[in-house]
Amino acid sequence: MDIQHYQEEFLSYLDSKEWVQEPKNLYEPVDYILKLGGKRIRPVLTLMAADIFGTEYTKALPAALAVEVFHNFTLVHDDIMDDAPLRRGKATVHEKWDINRAILSGDAMLILAYKYFENYKPEVFQKLAKLFSKTALEVCDGQQLDVDFETRKKVTIDEYLNMICLKTSVLVAAALKMGAIVAESDDKNADLIYDFGLNLGLAFQLQDDYLDTFGDPETFGKQIGGDIMENKKTFLYLKTLEVADKETKKKLKYFYRKKLKDNGFKVVEVTRIYQMNDIPYLMSIEIEKYTQKAFDTLEEMDISEANKTNLRNFGTWLMNRTV
Amino acid sequence: MDIQHYQEEFLSYLDSKEWVQEPKNLYEPVDYILKLGGKRIRPVLTLMAADIFGTEYTKALPAALAVEVFHNFTLVHDDIMDDAPLRRGKATVHEKWDINRAILSGDAMLILAYKYFENYKPEVFQKLAKLFSKTALEVCDGQQLDVDFETRKKVTIDEYLNMICLKTSVLVAAALKMGAIVAESDDKNADLIYDFGLNLGLAFQLQDDYLDTFGDPETFGKQIGGDIMENKKTFLYLKTLEVADKETKKKLKYFYRKKLKDNGFKVVEVTRIYQMNDIPYLMSIEIEKYTQKAFDTLEEMDISEANKTNLRNFGTWLMNRTV
Repeated sequence: MDIQHYQEEFLSYLDSKEWVQEPKNLYEPVDYILKLGGKRIRPVLTLMAADIFGTEYTKALPAALAVEVFHNFTLVHDDIMDDAPLRRGKATVHEKWDINRAILSGDAMLILAYKYFENYKPEVFQKLAKLFSKTALEVCDGQQLDVDFETRKKVTIDEYLNMICLKTSVLVAAALKMGAIVAESDDKNADLIYDFGLNLGLAFQLQDDYLDTFGDPETFGKQIGGDIMENKKTFLYLKTLEVADKETKKKLKYFYRKKLKDNGFKVVEVTRIYQMNDIPYLMSIEIEKYTQKAFDTLEEMDISEANKTNLRNFGTWLMNRTV
Repeated sequence: MDIQHYQEEFLSYLDSKEWVQEPKNLYEPVDYILKLGGKRIRPVLTLMAADIFGTEYTKALPAALAVEVFHNFTLVHDDIMDDAPLRRGKATVHEKWDINRAILSGDAMLILAYKYFENYKPEVFQKLAKLFSKTALEVCDGQQLDVDFETRKKVTIDEYLNMICLKTSVLVAAALKMGAIVAESDDKNADLIYDFGLNLGLAFQLQDDYLDTFGDPETFGKQIGGDIMENKKTFLYLKTLEVADKETKKKLKYFYRKKLKDNGFKVVEVTRIYQMNDIPYLMSIEIEKYTQKAFDTLEEMDISEANKTNLRNFGTWLMNRTV
């Protein structure tokens, strides 16, 4: 089991599709965003799960593509909502074309995603489409909560974890479960791999929050301190409000009320608050907790030890990234 | 078979659903748009077709709801793209809330539509979802072509007919076919009722174009002359460019280059050009052609004469509206 191998197989499947059809104005943005790159983690998970549950993993390529097309649909629409100019270093769809093109080609991608499930027989199709609809709606819920939290004064850590779970983890979990569904594994295993993905996805997103402030600017890809500049109520921020003294909380809240032109000072100061309050350590405990939860799920799974090791190695690989 | 009866049954089903869930900001717009009213023609067609093909028509309620929710999704996203302030006399979703809420709640509605098919067994589910995806993508294509035509200099009548077919008729056709699928009719009948809907949908949309200029302002609901003000390349416009003399074409094109603050004069003049060139008559021939095509399809259908009469009456009712 080799992640790079899955990636390559997926990419050649993606490239084999003729994305640009008539009307071209609708499908050019689809082609553009799908070929912008990225680690293709979600489709790789679908292929990997199909492999682990004992089916020819290429059978899972259409489902893997559905997951990736859906993920890119969320990027296109989220980028409009966030007014984001750049995605993977290139212009976002609504910047390169316009908002209307981004709305409509996003809609088309959401529908296209469902179409890839048509490659499977009715029972498998229904299972995939049901899981997909449930997941897609959860991702919308998560996106709405993320928007809501921006203007809400009080957000608890549990609410935050629930939001990132909906916005990010459920799709990671569903990507894995779809591989299990294609392989027609039993329901118990399919549910266990879902739980593995859900917890690993949470750990992954928390780590992403951590790297947004403490990552290596050379390799992280996004601008370090972006969340602080945007006043995002991340785990780092919420945990500080839980553990810090009154004076520190006041200072942090003061910085978070502002959107400054020169954010340098703010980023430095908030980062220092986090460090002074041991947030990197507290966060690593949390990340470790969810990673361990994911690994614990593996124990109950009815697969070979070799495959359990494979999944554990994948989790370790994913969590050890510094970028 | 009583249209009003289907309407009432559908509305009580719609009202039985709890539309507003958490996060409320996501689902309030869904509740709002679905309860704005409208004739509910599409879901009525699904119920009617199920009835005609010999099943308890209430079995088709979830499919009918899927069609109506999808239709309303297109209204929400199209209204953003068209920058429309009003829908059925009330504020559009992006006006009442904002563009982001309209994008995201629209997305949620598209996903919700698929979820209603989960009420059916796998074979029926797959048929419904396949037809739905095909149709939904065609509607996106139609919307894109509509946008494209606004800035394109030359549009043929055939291209225009193809556009309105995609944007409007395929959903009418699919609504009927879904009723047939729920009733598990044979494929031949399902395809025939689809063709009936496609042609009737075309006739209906052409009539809508006609009424936009020549309808009764007391009853039409939209502003008379709206298409002319917006320089929409409708059948009326394109047909005039086909049949009129050089001087008239020049005059019409002159008016269509302008967006005026006071449109009164323009509407009067363009309407007069249409009348002088016999466009209302030429258009009635076209509408009659597609209505007749629809009725011809009925002859081949394997249903009772009484049901053929019912469908013909429905078509006549639909086409005799002056509003």
